[in-house]
Amino acid sequence: MNPDRLSRQASFLTEADKLKRVLRRTLIADGSRRENSAEHSWHLALTAMVLREYAAEPVNFPRVLEMLAAHDLVEIDADDTFAYDVEGNRTRTERERRAADRLFALLPDDLAASLRALWEEFEEHKTPESRFANAVDRIQPLLQNLATDGGTWRIYHPTREQVLRRMDPVRTALPALWPFVQSAIDDFFLTPESDGLRS
Amino acid sequence: MNPDRLSRQASFLTEADKLKRVLRRTLIADGSRRENSAEHSWHLALTAMVLREYAAEPVNFPRVLEMLAAHDLVEIDADDTFAYDVEGNRTRTERERRAADRLFALLPDDLAASLRALWEEFEEHKTPESRFANAVDRIQPLLQNLATDGGTWRIYHPTREQVLRRMDPVRTALPALWPFVQSAIDDFFLTPESDGLRS
Repeated sequence: MNPDRLSRQASFLTEADKLKRVLRRTLIADGSRRENSAEHSWHLALTAMVLREYAAEPVNFPRVLEMLAAHDLVEIDADDTFAYDVEGNRTRTERERRAADRLFALLPDDLAASLRALWEEFEEHKTPESRFANAVDRIQPLLQNLATDGGTWRIYHPTREQVLRRMDPVRTALPALWPFVQSAIDDFFLTPESDGLRS
Repeated sequence: MNPDRLSRQASFLTEADKLKRVLRRTLIADGSRRENSAEHSWHLALTAMVLREYAAEPVNFPRVLEMLAAHDLVEIDADDTFAYDVEGNRTRTERERRAADRLFALLPDDLAASLRALWEEFEEHKTPESRFANAVDRIQPLLQNLATDGGTWRIYHPTREQVLRRMDPVRTALPALWPFVQSAIDDFFLTPESDGLRS
């Protein structure tokens, strides 16, 4: 056992704790506070486990779980960028790349490379595992919004078209869930009597 | 697609959100607040990924990740039982069994059985995967304590012997880390000049 190696692993794990302080716009299901990115990452793992039967194509499921555990780490430096923040999303890639350069370098090289590869794969949406993981990362906040009277839709007023575009990974990677997603979005955005309540 | 099945899966995932409100005694690494069991579960997945090379025996790693995602769900009803709470630990098994009966029954039967099996396996400490997952569940709070000037050791005053016993899964499942664990415990409990500071 190489003490320096273990020491770097331990330092990285302690640094990773900071993800518990990164707040997303999404509320937890009782509406009492914003969700943090660490507990969100756990909830995605559970969501993947419960919904995996709906995957549109075969996925290497262990890789999905590892990807979900690593996918938000860069937010420790780059903060969470809200899906509907146009300006923030213009600079997101560059901010997150710098964060990845710093954070993964805390680890021994082999582990740095494998965790960084998980994050890059998630961002690129190119593999079946990435497409499935991204779909899970869309459906969980939708369930949180349904539990909180619209949640981020109610608070930040994205348009129905923005939300449908945001949810598109569900359409492609979890197509069996798409009617449920569409109907949830239509219930919120197209129900006339709710306009007054939600404006 | 069976709408009732999906509806039960979605209800379970929303119910699972309550794990974000279950507070452990462990502090997050900046010492600012107690850690919740959802973010703890995520941190365990990451810890398992970073420390898996030290596993004493071969493990089915995907099963470890699934076990860690499911292992604390029963705390939604049974609350977190602090490791050094003697009275609470006398009733823990029964409280958690009742919680499992209610929570997993929210899911369709096949998923209920598979998630419950993960929780039971974790609790029984019998398989290599369970032993590894339990060791990870010990080393992460130790790292949190090291980041917070002793954390729960400083606040709740367990004895050195209680802590060593609590950490025993690390000795058996992550033996390469045991010298590090022993030395961290000895530094805290056996350093005379710190007694005054920590009393």
